[in-house]
Amino acid sequence: MTHHPLKKHIEEIIKLTDEEFEFILSHFETTNKRKHQYLLQDGEIADKEYWIVKGCLKSYFFDESGKEHILQFGMENWWITDYESFVKQSKSKINIDCIEDCELLYITFENREKLTKEMHKMERFWAKKSKFGRIALQNRILSLLKNSTKERYELLLEQYPKLFHRVPKKLIASYLGVSRETLSRLYS
Amino acid sequence: MTHHPLKKHIEEIIKLTDEEFEFILSHFETTNKRKHQYLLQDGEIADKEYWIVKGCLKSYFFDESGKEHILQFGMENWWITDYESFVKQSKSKINIDCIEDCELLYITFENREKLTKEMHKMERFWAKKSKFGRIALQNRILSLLKNSTKERYELLLEQYPKLFHRVPKKLIASYLGVSRETLSRLYS
Repeated sequence: MTHHPLKKHIEEIIKLTDEEFEFILSHFETTNKRKHQYLLQDGEIADKEYWIVKGCLKSYFFDESGKEHILQFGMENWWITDYESFVKQSKSKINIDCIEDCELLYITFENREKLTKEMHKMERFWAKKSKFGRIALQNRILSLLKNSTKERYELLLEQYPKLFHRVPKKLIASYLGVSRETLSRLYS
Repeated sequence: MTHHPLKKHIEEIIKLTDEEFEFILSHFETTNKRKHQYLLQDGEIADKEYWIVKGCLKSYFFDESGKEHILQFGMENWWITDYESFVKQSKSKINIDCIEDCELLYITFENREKLTKEMHKMERFWAKKSKFGRIALQNRILSLLKNSTKERYELLLEQYPKLFHRVPKKLIASYLGVSRETLSRLYS
């Protein structure tokens, strides 16, 4: 139990006793999804937040012309949900699909509210996670406004080198907001 | 004291007694800045978070060609700082300037840490504010990836109609990432 990957992950921010971690873990469920299966569709309410034990996912949405735009990728140790839909319990604007077979832990909205109330350490953990998430989004906006496609490609490569071995180039292009052909010119 | 605008603002999220609010307010200082004066320059550490009592501000950064990009506007009842620099106490990438004469309340990083520890209500208040901030940023990214300039212009007009009377068109163009001329074609 001490070496559970989720315990290690939470302990990057707060220290836990084994008992505390067992209590936290009792609020989670496990699920396995196969490549191409989905976790969330736009129009649904995101009632779960997932923690990725193994696998790779994408969250994405369609513009009015039906073109797919990637909002976020997810890999091991990352959390994934539609944050707005989950927090507000409102209809989601985005979709989440598995790019690989995935092993996931999830916590429901109710259990997360309960755990936040019952355990101040977890309230602090999620507050901190939320801060970091906000900072990452702010940097993505700065990058979208400031950097060329080439610079954003290089930044992504630098931050997440593993992503390039696991994710089809078509999806990388969709994340960067360019065509597959434009991307080919950048990395060839 | 009961009718202080900051009390009203905090009470949109959590209820406070007058004593609690006075305790909170004792952690803030007041400052007045004139139009064109700055609150933060890139390279500095953001050691204060500001709450806008009166006035209008912009946070912005320069790209490598020296072009200005607006990250955020701020008006009455909004909080403004470089969130990343403030949270991490790292060097800021952005600037914050007054577009009008401004009356501001601010809390230092140390006082905010102190107040968060001392008062669970304020920990919850800021956690909630951070959640909403993260959601707003996510929606800005969705909009940047998905919407045309015209759509983003209309969205801004719909969300913040007052902004258009207070902020020069040049700055609206810079927020939308287009030239002053392109913007003229949109709103004429």
